[in-house]
Amino acid sequence: MGKMIYLDNAATTKTAPEVVQAMMPYFSEYYGNPSSIYDFAGKSKEAITRGREQIAEVLGAKKEEIYFTAGGSESDNWALKAAFEAYKSKGNHIITTKIEHHAILHTCEYLEKERGAKITYLDVDENGIVKLDELEKAITPETILISVMFANNEIGTIQPIKEIGRIAKEHGILFHTDAVQAFCQVPINVDECNIDMLSSSGHKINGPKGIGFLYIRKGVKIRSFVHGGAQERKRRAGTENVPGIVGYGAAAARANASMKERTAKEIQIRDHMIQRIETEIPYVKVNGDRVKRLPNNVNVSFQFVEGESLLLMLDNYGICASSGSACTSGSLDPSHVLLAIGLPHEIAHGSLRMTLSEETTMEDVDFVIDRLKEIVEHLRNMSPLYEDFVKKHK
Amino acid sequence: MGKMIYLDNAATTKTAPEVVQAMMPYFSEYYGNPSSIYDFAGKSKEAITRGREQIAEVLGAKKEEIYFTAGGSESDNWALKAAFEAYKSKGNHIITTKIEHHAILHTCEYLEKERGAKITYLDVDENGIVKLDELEKAITPETILISVMFANNEIGTIQPIKEIGRIAKEHGILFHTDAVQAFCQVPINVDECNIDMLSSSGHKINGPKGIGFLYIRKGVKIRSFVHGGAQERKRRAGTENVPGIVGYGAAAARANASMKERTAKEIQIRDHMIQRIETEIPYVKVNGDRVKRLPNNVNVSFQFVEGESLLLMLDNYGICASSGSACTSGSLDPSHVLLAIGLPHEIAHGSLRMTLSEETTMEDVDFVIDRLKEIVEHLRNMSPLYEDFVKKHK
Ligand SMILES: Cc1ncc(COP(=O)(O)O)c(C=O)c1O
Ligand SMILES: Cc1ncc(COP(=O)(O)O)c(C=O)c1O
Repeated sequence: MGKMIYLDNAATTKTAPEVVQAMMPYFSEYYGNPSSIYDFAGKSKEAITRGREQIAEVLGAKKEEIYFTAGGSESDNWALKAAFEAYKSKGNHIITTKIEHHAILHTCEYLEKERGAKITYLDVDENGIVKLDELEKAITPETILISVMFANNEIGTIQPIKEIGRIAKEHGILFHTDAVQAFCQVPINVDECNIDMLSSSGHKINGPKGIGFLYIRKGVKIRSFVHGGAQERKRRAGTENVPGIVGYGAAAARANASMKERTAKEIQIRDHMIQRIETEIPYVKVNGDRVKRLPNNVNVSFQFVEGESLLLMLDNYGICASSGSACTSGSLDPSHVLLAIGLPHEIAHGSLRMTLSEETTMEDVDFVIDRLKEIVEHLRNMSPLYEDFVKKHK
Repeated sequence: MGKMIYLDNAATTKTAPEVVQAMMPYFSEYYGNPSSIYDFAGKSKEAITRGREQIAEVLGAKKEEIYFTAGGSESDNWALKAAFEAYKSKGNHIITTKIEHHAILHTCEYLEKERGAKITYLDVDENGIVKLDELEKAITPETILISVMFANNEIGTIQPIKEIGRIAKEHGILFHTDAVQAFCQVPINVDECNIDMLSSSGHKINGPKGIGFLYIRKGVKIRSFVHGGAQERKRRAGTENVPGIVGYGAAAARANASMKERTAKEIQIRDHMIQRIETEIPYVKVNGDRVKRLPNNVNVSFQFVEGESLLLMLDNYGICASSGSACTSGSLDPSHVLLAIGLPHEIAHGSLRMTLSEETTMEDVDFVIDRLKEIVEHLRNMSPLYEDFVKKHK
């Protein structure tokens, strides 16, 4: 096998070597517990303050509003469960969408089944965008929380977050956004968007795995999800993951600094891929919005093809891509996101997600598209459905 | 300042260089998401399987019974909250002790206040040991869970876990133990002790911060604490912290292999320290059991002295130690553990915890005790209480 072409950056990213470098001293040299009072522990305390500042800066937030967690899933669980507990005396209604990540959807199911919450799952249009009028209509006096993801992990669609934030604010409702895919990919300002809570995960931005944060606006009265020690201003117990926080901060600073240039390049490559696929491969459908789209996301359905087979054959060429969402693989159900934008089951099954990084080149993707053409043709030639279809349309 | 003498290994430990070495390839080389299906991700999947095996082996458990978390606090929260949810139709009563870590105590308070649990907090004797007859008496038909820590983080007392497990089993009650301080410090076999759930944290055994596990015996029907993706056999959502898991596995294998020799040496040094303190410094009290004690724990109260001042003066010599529990510092309340073993407030305030590592030498601790003698004398000479006391007793 030759060189690997990694096009699954929405699943996870390489931890940047300079990020690892930044983390290194905090394993075996400055390993003190930030809660201890001796001088040596000050190094750890300073390091997590710096990480907090680096992240707050990206969002236009205050450093005291950043709370470190173990990742996007914990942040999502925390936001929803703790908001429900804090505001349930006011009402039990939460509004979200059908295309959220499972960290939101399964948490909502839990709140419905176990805690008496009522959840509205908003439909989206054929590009995956929430309809603002339906959001407004869904609001009741019982509504305590709106949770809409910033950008979708499968089809890359970016939501009208500013408008949603405005609506939430007008109605005095808390607004949470899962920005795991959007943080450092698109500019985000929590004040401009009236965001009250925001989830993010380190390993999606060339930071380490096992670290995330929840932004909580000052004044939002949610309590802890993980109870215990007084860490994170008494809101998230557990000895701080100092190297993880350092790496996350470094990754955020790095990704923020390169955002403009990097995403401009990614958009060029992304659109080139989409254009080549659409012109050179028949019976394809590009999923998600063409413009309101993550810079690094390509998602296409190939009729008469199984996504899994596609992945395995791409893998033979060292090409890493994804069909549904890697986070929930192990399941053969078609993606709930693709169903929500109206794809029939059999088309949803033939979908491919390719997500770029700063390292992806035009040569890489041209090689990938060339292979993709061959593979799709090959798989279709083995498909009885395709045979029938071709006969009928001759 | 010369060399640092780090005697706060119960707060956190140095990540062993060979542990960091084992983690390194999983940041920037084998960074794939273990849930992905391409070959490259297989490296990550194998790595977490190996980590799971390494940990299961230490406990005499099956690898499928190890569930990775972000640390001891998450594991404790998960065990208690999910057990309560799973078994609350059977009863709402949980038995624990007054000397648990805050990750247990504050979770119990939450379950009491928010979820309708009834909690019994057992007293302990003057050495910090749970009284088995009181445990038996506390059991009611409503009791669904007993949670007693394996070893205490402040005074090092080791509980009669085998007997507690036997009692729990006889009554058909789930048994959880917080083994954050005991794992790899004392031999643990989950079957011999009838342990149903066990919490542990990587950074206490020279592994990395931000990783822990919950052992859940096969057949125990608790659900997720963090909802979302299908990771950890659908029981703990979130992209796996692959380097963290690799490091934790390596640290467990390493600490298990060295346990016998290491702890024999630590016991020698520990008892030497205790003996010197008791013979060379007047008005001291050794806290915790002399024998049923973690090999690396020394905890002593010095009358007429403030723990904080002691720490700061030791820090001037590069000596790192702790007064209360580092996990909850920032608070000036005396330790709930020291109060529970019957210490008056003013004595509890003058307490010092020194916890050894494999690197601690006799020379180190002799230097520390020499400084301690001087510092205690110095602080007492500045204390009006001590002056009064001396006058009275002349
Ligand atoms: C007995 C005990 N339980 C739980 C914890 C919490 O572990 P962590 O801080 O790694 O979440 C600690 C840490 O100090 C502990 O000593
Ligand atoms: C939109 C979104 N939310 C949440 C998550 C969960 O993040 P993590 O797996 O880091 O916990 C993901 C990860 O795939 C995601 O894409």
